[in-house]
Amino acid sequence: MAYRAVIPFKPVDPKTRLSCVLNREERESFARAMLRDVVTAVWSSGGSPIILSTHPCFSCPDAEVVVTAAGLNDALNAFFTQEKEPLCMVMADLPLVTPDALQRVVGTRDDIAMVPGRGGGTNVLYLRDPRRFRADFYGASYLKHLRIAAEFGCSVEVVDSFRLHTDVDEKEDLVELLIHGTGTSREFLESLGFSLVTEHGRVGVERHTHKEAR
Amino acid sequence: MAYRAVIPFKPVDPKTRLSCVLNREERESFARAMLRDVVTAVWSSGGSPIILSTHPCFSCPDAEVVVTAAGLNDALNAFFTQEKEPLCMVMADLPLVTPDALQRVVGTRDDIAMVPGRGGGTNVLYLRDPRRFRADFYGASYLKHLRIAAEFGCSVEVVDSFRLHTDVDEKEDLVELLIHGTGTSREFLESLGFSLVTEHGRVGVERHTHKEAR
Repeated sequence: MAYRAVIPFKPVDPKTRLSCVLNREERESFARAMLRDVVTAVWSSGGSPIILSTHPCFSCPDAEVVVTAAGLNDALNAFFTQEKEPLCMVMADLPLVTPDALQRVVGTRDDIAMVPGRGGGTNVLYLRDPRRFRADFYGASYLKHLRIAAEFGCSVEVVDSFRLHTDVDEKEDLVELLIHGTGTSREFLESLGFSLVTEHGRVGVERHTHKEAR
Repeated sequence: MAYRAVIPFKPVDPKTRLSCVLNREERESFARAMLRDVVTAVWSSGGSPIILSTHPCFSCPDAEVVVTAAGLNDALNAFFTQEKEPLCMVMADLPLVTPDALQRVVGTRDDIAMVPGRGGGTNVLYLRDPRRFRADFYGASYLKHLRIAAEFGCSVEVVDSFRLHTDVDEKEDLVELLIHGTGTSREFLESLGFSLVTEHGRVGVERHTHKEAR
């Protein structure tokens, strides 16, 4: 099914909670690698990606890029208001994304499909009529978005996907990427010397590299 | 589809990583509440639960209970070896489980269906022929189980479910239960005074109670 996917993206100093293992340049490269995996999966699932970038210093060979100075909610809501066709919002930090998982979302029969992120966030949002919705990110946005959908009288399908549930913010999340990732961002992590390590029956990541991470 | 589900369970001093917010008695009650949600979902999805308990001091009104002194792997492998019918193993700490999610697993067309847990564990395992498998839990068991399936020449479907991916081990995991839970274990947490709290845009849990947790 053809669809348009808007992907909010922060190219400058992103993913600060990964500062313990990646310096700023590496975090910027890593964020782009994750975006690459998302853009590729969007195309493979029949979507056309539009990147909503917070900074102009960014281009993408195979996606439209729209630069906005507005915050996430304002930027998305400006987008939703003028949109008459169905629209999918996909977060840029979902490197486990697969075309199958996205198709489960955009194939919904409901007015809205949603995938919650870990900790109450909203990772993917499919809006059959974007004018009948209002983005309210930060905090437990998943619960807020359920309420907003109800206010607009929209039916909601919650899509049960760990691949889309797993947003990468912290060092522990890198474990998931090294276990389940198959794309650019996993390769990037491995090129930096990251690998899985098991201690006392629990799995973590370690980094072997000649360059020290700041 | 009718199926049998084996659920390993530790009734005595379980979930020690929750000791920061629950005392031992509460942890034992919480583990039983989560087991209740799993048993209910198994029945609702057409399954018959068999609880593999580490201790004899435990009974369940609507499930067969088998007591074993063996460790998890030995206990499961003894089970698998003598089993000629398809069997599903479901961990007891999956309170977000739904009948739909279990049906996606047992409805697989492959020889084996698997749901990875967070951190490389294996949360659900469906074996069409249990004699052609060997449990190897602890550490990155998901990766080990993929290799074991390959050694036995079995095809594997990895079922993409955050509800079955989310095992509850630590305080942060309680956030997921308070957001997405609908059963006994969420009610139990709420009865102890747990609720969601948002600070600096991130969601956690807090506990208001007259009894201090040890």
